Amino acid sequence: MYGIDTDGPGSTSGAVDLRSDTLTRPTPAMRRAMAEAEVGDDVYREDPTVNALEERVAELFGHQAALFVPSGTMGNQIGLRLVCEPGQEVLGDADAHVLTYEMGAAAALFGLSSRTVVSDGGRLSADQLIEQVRPHGDWHLTATAAIAVENTHNRGGGLVQPLAELQRLFDWSRGAGVNVHLDGARVFNAHAASGVPLATYGRLADTASVCLSKGLGAPVGSVLVASAERIAAARLWRKRLGGGMRQVGVLAAAGLHALDHHVERLAEDHEHARLLAEQLGVDPATVETNMVVVDDVPAPAVAEAAKAQGVLVGQVSARRVRLVTHLDVDRAGIDRAAKVLTQVVGELTGR
Amino acid sequence: MYGIDTDGPGSTSGAVDLRSDTLTRPTPAMRRAMAEAEVGDDVYREDPTVNALEERVAELFGHQAALFVPSGTMGNQIGLRLVCEPGQEVLGDADAHVLTYEMGAAAALFGLSSRTVVSDGGRLSADQLIEQVRPHGDWHLTATAAIAVENTHNRGGGLVQPLAELQRLFDWSRGAGVNVHLDGARVFNAHAASGVPLATYGRLADTASVCLSKGLGAPVGSVLVASAERIAAARLWRKRLGGGMRQVGVLAAAGLHALDHHVERLAEDHEHARLLAEQLGVDPATVETNMVVVDDVPAPAVAEAAKAQGVLVGQVSARRVRLVTHLDVDRAGIDRAAKVLTQVVGELTGR
Amino acid sequence: MYGIDTDGPGSTSGAVDLRSDTLTRPTPAMRRAMAEAEVGDDVYREDPTVNALEERVAELFGHQAALFVPSGTMGNQIGLRLVCEPGQEVLGDADAHVLTYEMGAAAALFGLSSRTVVSDGGRLSADQLIEQVRPHGDWHLTATAAIAVENTHNRGGGLVQPLAELQRLFDWSRGAGVNVHLDGARVFNAHAASGVPLATYGRLADTASVCLSKGLGAPVGSVLVASAERIAAARLWRKRLGGGMRQVGVLAAAGLHALDHHVERLAEDHEHARLLAEQLGVDPATVETNMVVVDDVPAPAVAEAAKAQGVLVGQVSARRVRLVTHLDVDRAGIDRAAKVLTQVVGELTGR
Amino acid sequence: MYGIDTDGPGSTSGAVDLRSDTLTRPTPAMRRAMAEAEVGDDVYREDPTVNALEERVAELFGHQAALFVPSGTMGNQIGLRLVCEPGQEVLGDADAHVLTYEMGAAAALFGLSSRTVVSDGGRLSADQLIEQVRPHGDWHLTATAAIAVENTHNRGGGLVQPLAELQRLFDWSRGAGVNVHLDGARVFNAHAASGVPLATYGRLADTASVCLSKGLGAPVGSVLVASAERIAAARLWRKRLGGGMRQVGVLAAAGLHALDHHVERLAEDHEHARLLAEQLGVDPATVETNMVVVDDVPAPAVAEAAKAQGVLVGQVSARRVRLVTHLDVDRAGIDRAAKVLTQVVGELTGR
Repeated sequence: MYGIDTDGPGSTSGAVDLRSDTLTRPTPAMRRAMAEAEVGDDVYREDPTVNALEERVAELFGHQAALFVPSGTMGNQIGLRLVCEPGQEVLGDADAHVLTYEMGAAAALFGLSSRTVVSDGGRLSADQLIEQVRPHGDWHLTATAAIAVENTHNRGGGLVQPLAELQRLFDWSRGAGVNVHLDGARVFNAHAASGVPLATYGRLADTASVCLSKGLGAPVGSVLVASAERIAAARLWRKRLGGGMRQVGVLAAAGLHALDHHVERLAEDHEHARLLAEQLGVDPATVETNMVVVDDVPAPAVAEAAKAQGVLVGQVSARRVRLVTHLDVDRAGIDRAAKVLTQVVGELTGR
Repeated sequence: MYGIDTDGPGSTSGAVDLRSDTLTRPTPAMRRAMAEAEVGDDVYREDPTVNALEERVAELFGHQAALFVPSGTMGNQIGLRLVCEPGQEVLGDADAHVLTYEMGAAAALFGLSSRTVVSDGGRLSADQLIEQVRPHGDWHLTATAAIAVENTHNRGGGLVQPLAELQRLFDWSRGAGVNVHLDGARVFNAHAASGVPLATYGRLADTASVCLSKGLGAPVGSVLVASAERIAAARLWRKRLGGGMRQVGVLAAAGLHALDHHVERLAEDHEHARLLAEQLGVDPATVETNMVVVDDVPAPAVAEAAKAQGVLVGQVSARRVRLVTHLDVDRAGIDRAAKVLTQVVGELTGR
Repeated sequence: MYGIDTDGPGSTSGAVDLRSDTLTRPTPAMRRAMAEAEVGDDVYREDPTVNALEERVAELFGHQAALFVPSGTMGNQIGLRLVCEPGQEVLGDADAHVLTYEMGAAAALFGLSSRTVVSDGGRLSADQLIEQVRPHGDWHLTATAAIAVENTHNRGGGLVQPLAELQRLFDWSRGAGVNVHLDGARVFNAHAASGVPLATYGRLADTASVCLSKGLGAPVGSVLVASAERIAAARLWRKRLGGGMRQVGVLAAAGLHALDHHVERLAEDHEHARLLAEQLGVDPATVETNMVVVDDVPAPAVAEAAKAQGVLVGQVSARRVRLVTHLDVDRAGIDRAAKVLTQVVGELTGR
Repeated sequence: MYGIDTDGPGSTSGAVDLRSDTLTRPTPAMRRAMAEAEVGDDVYREDPTVNALEERVAELFGHQAALFVPSGTMGNQIGLRLVCEPGQEVLGDADAHVLTYEMGAAAALFGLSSRTVVSDGGRLSADQLIEQVRPHGDWHLTATAAIAVENTHNRGGGLVQPLAELQRLFDWSRGAGVNVHLDGARVFNAHAASGVPLATYGRLADTASVCLSKGLGAPVGSVLVASAERIAAARLWRKRLGGGMRQVGVLAAAGLHALDHHVERLAEDHEHARLLAEQLGVDPATVETNMVVVDDVPAPAVAEAAKAQGVLVGQVSARRVRLVTHLDVDRAGIDRAAKVLTQVVGELTGR
């Protein structure tokens, strides 16, 4: 039985917190933007800040429309529901967040089946997925209605999906009656690392959920993008799920601020991750964005010892630790973390 | 076919907006509280402001634990799920928000059936509900697992449920293996009007959802209260529904501010509603809290004519208009609305 | 709390069993037809007897296609699923079998909401239903996708729905984007009583479930009729529900035999019911088909006393008894039942 | 995209039909037993033949209670529902019938997630499953509530699961809060081949579905066994799913007849399969029960050419053919099939 959770609770005051990029706190400027946001009742569609954010994100990703939702989980799950019917299945990677780390929501709430392939460390292979697709109309098999893609891939250590594979999968899907959903929780990191335009990533999916609350540093919120017709349906599902909020422009303002100020700077997080990797003797080739995976270490012991020295790390499994760089960790924090972790890992492993 | 929606979109700048108390915008002081909120990642349970809010609301309502959720719909629906299993039913009033105005969520997401009684204008009658309860173990009938109560009752024009009936229903339910869920979207108004302590209302329910974003004036958020065991389960359902948010202390801070500053003042909204009723010739006895229902008027025409003069009203049906007083409408606004509506209704009905 | 079940278990050997027409045992001729049936694997669609039955029932009811299912519940529930999506609602009578006596299946299995009107004893009023229909696209209300009709109406004492109302409802539904499902568990009785052709009843519905195992006397089975496209979808849902059976021609043969030999004779059951009513002092105008409802009697006591004398009756509520005539009760049985019940009711009520 | 269905429709008159053991037609003696069956209304639990069958199967498999259901799919799906809650997951083999060939029922109807491991050709490895189990209470992962086992394994070519592995898995599960469901569609074949008592297989599972309509030759029906408490719940789920039937003793009689007369003779089917394998040059070690898998052949061409000569075979994939022996294929049929297939495969593959 495995499953040591990466995300256990803990005190964090003053620490260099590398457990996740979800942990960022809003900057003073972002808080100012929130405090000054023009708001209205978004259930009535009268919140101008939300409307502006939705319009902007739709355009950024080359889709007709967008919907603000309170979490990446809601964006992902509504996205799946738009492209898959009860009794059909979603196919994806065995470590896909949307299939594996969202508490069985697709089945529990919507009656969607899911099936997974074990990929090469999260790296998308169009062929591997395509050959697992099951046809419609069979008497026994669950039809594959959608394929879920994750970019960057979280459990894959923040890897950037190859554009050629994304393109190949999407092209194939057009003729096959299969839809593609993008879990873009960290698609801004993919963009920052690869230089591929966000609209290119967006257009290679029928539905995409992108998060404002990870690398971008907003406190809350994700945005689902799709066709206008699908977003109209999504709005009803959001209401049904309890995601229809009122003067939520206070959160949307943080998202708009993040889009203005925190996209370019993701390169800095990536640079920090590379620095960390180098200092820890981790192959820098494995660090494509803002995550460093340290393998073959006693994860609980490392986490505890590092925490005692003010450095918080994520435990992915019994022998794997994950370090995530983000807006709230500056160069000094990186150096401190590198020093503490080098010492701790050295003491615990003798290397 | 009926169903003219009370909540159509519309421009609102500078208007006296009486469509709903959900429309309040955060005050400058509330915005300040939000901007200065101490936050953390609430998925990790590290947001101190959220934790403080949950603790406070649990205590206020006399329950062990509480959970912050993004909407009253989510609070209500998780509440129902905690007290009813798929294949069982929830019984309630035909105009209960949780059964009728939440888009079929209980069935769609959780497989819960519902059945309704037509009450006397929303007024709770324990006997009427009790005699409709269906037993467990029958071979054909859906077992009644829970009864939903709404206080104040929205479609009932903000009426306060009789404490004796609440008590009688709850007492009966203990022996019958039936749970009670309170939709407390406006339970603060009930408390302000009746003087019944919040904890009394809370203790007469197994689960209760209370809203911060209606009369209390917070921009977003509701709180579900229940036993510690149920709230632990609710936390998993919230995650599954996509209601797990990150540095959501910015919203919780608004809720705490509202609890500190906006509960007492609800009496003012109630006084405003009575004033409006008087000036419009509506029987003040029908105005128990912050809503005024004007019947036998051509609702669309009244709404349009009033809007042209800067007064927004809700259309409940073709012949019924609803006026809701709240934090953003002061005495001058009330007077203006009364004047405009008296004229408009006079012209359109000749009365 | 009400809900004394009509269908409690009990010993039945040698008794005149008037509890339900579901209780008929196959006749020797029907058993012969079953024993000689040509069969194949119906999951492969290779059972010629099933195919013949489906073709025949589709034609009888004026629909393109039909599907054999193991029960009326499965026929009804798949029927609803074909005309209603998760999050939408089915509207019907508060005593509709499909909504009230099938254990919440529509919500539990498919996520369909339901809402009911209290009709005049089960009698269909098109207007009453139409005015309760809720529109698509509303932000809060569950859209009404389908209306369920029951003919004859079981809890209404076997009453035959007025053709003019059926017609009016269906005509209206065409323009309203609403579908009609017919629960035709006893539509053969309606046909026998009214002379309205089965195809006329069939054509006034988008989906209809008709039972072979009630008045027709087959041991098991119902048939769902609809368009070819809908039946193709129904076939997949039947498999998913576990209703796909193998050499089920043994059951279909009983159905074909029943259609050949047991439709005309329903008139005899209706005559028996009228005789019973007369002898029991029940207004014969209330007996439209094969059920007699006796009100204002102590139902449990009547049932027990009658059973002691070899007559079994159904208990619909604490004060209502139901007598159902069918293939297994001949004229002598009717006379015996009348005699026993007259005496028992006389003794227990003094009338 | 794969998924050539093994079970396409086709004409079968006079053919040696090796597509599946579901295709058996009832023998004259079985038909006689059905025609003479004493029956009653099983919804009322008054069918003595059904009651006798349920009692007998419960005892055979060492469980407290049993429930007759119309199909293996219904038996399996109710079985899963008894041991898994919405939002939890069932773990099993990637080729498990219950997870892969039952049209996504567990998710669609009950909201259950599923996850699969790729086993060694269907062979159960307790360790492989155990290490994939996910804990309860995690904030992101779906908890593993149950493990599904299939014995014999259909897609594994009828292989018999190792008793030691079944035992190890069950023993482990006791301490882990995980339940075991046995898909025993062909557990009688496992018993016939291994000599392991049915009760031993039964006791290594919390719920088990066993089929009467496969090797045993009954036309319709499966039986779910479990504790008395679980079977009581199963009865309600069966009603909800539409599996509650009336005078279904006509089918149960076939099941009882099969238990009396068709268990011992399964050895004959196994002998037939070995003969076929030998004559076709298939390694007899791969033939554990009544299935022969022929690999590396052009399946559609083989099926078509053999059919032209009166031999029907199943196509499992583009390059795999499956031959299933059963009650309706005698020694002469086996010889004929061997001759035809040897020739056909020889011509098409040159081997």
